[in-house]
Amino acid sequence: MPKLAGDVKETFSKTAIYAVATASKDGVPNVVPIHFVKIYDESNDIILLVDNFMNKTLKNLEDNSRIAISVWDLDKKLAFQIKGEATIVKSGKPFDDASDWVKKTMPDLKPKSAILLKVTNVYNCQPGPDLGKEL
Amino acid sequence: MPKLAGDVKETFSKTAIYAVATASKDGVPNVVPIHFVKIYDESNDIILLVDNFMNKTLKNLEDNSRIAISVWDLDKKLAFQIKGEATIVKSGKPFDDASDWVKKTMPDLKPKSAILLKVTNVYNCQPGPDLGKEL
Repeated sequence: MPKLAGDVKETFSKTAIYAVATASKDGVPNVVPIHFVKIYDESNDIILLVDNFMNKTLKNLEDNSRIAISVWDLDKKLAFQIKGEATIVKSGKPFDDASDWVKKTMPDLKPKSAILLKVTNVYNCQPGPDLGKEL
Repeated sequence: MPKLAGDVKETFSKTAIYAVATASKDGVPNVVPIHFVKIYDESNDIILLVDNFMNKTLKNLEDNSRIAISVWDLDKKLAFQIKGEATIVKSGKPFDDASDWVKKTMPDLKPKSAILLKVTNVYNCQPGPDLGKEL
């Protein structure tokens, strides 16, 4: 079963701004808001993040491929953390798909790379008895 | 001058849910939404985070005191990342202040600890020419 299904998929897909965390090789966390993030290949648990403006996030990923993304829905009282391994892609279909996606709504932007995130774990982050549990 | 001043202070103070990132000693980032976060001692650049439900965040902080917090204001097109060093406090005035604060709006919660974050750096995260610059 895909990891990004049901409430996770719905919460993730409705999010406008994703809190994307990385860490330097020295273990300094970094978290930034990113808009261009979406489920790219649901059956293989792949998320696409577009690098339009990435700075420290990209530097961290070059040294340490781990990413964590936080999403929440205050109305439905749902919150999830998605963790996985990133691959930086600068050409080919994923990069073209990223560029086409950005062009539709923000044609002035020029994506520098596409980040493919292979989801490894999803955790419940909503306060309650299941807080912290892996789905 | 305090690091949490001007637009940073206003954006931080208006935020309802803070994206709080830590990293394990192995460099795995973790990011969770936390509500009880506020400026605690403005002149000394201290932020208070209340640990009502912290799980991996607290485990990470026990090994690696670095925290990053992301806040943004979509209407004003402002976004900042605050980085610093955390101290876990389980008694004394900061803990009592944390408990009193939570009790006012969510009396059923029992804070487990207070996290005092000494801010070391503030970065601009809003797309534009100043993206990534330290304030």
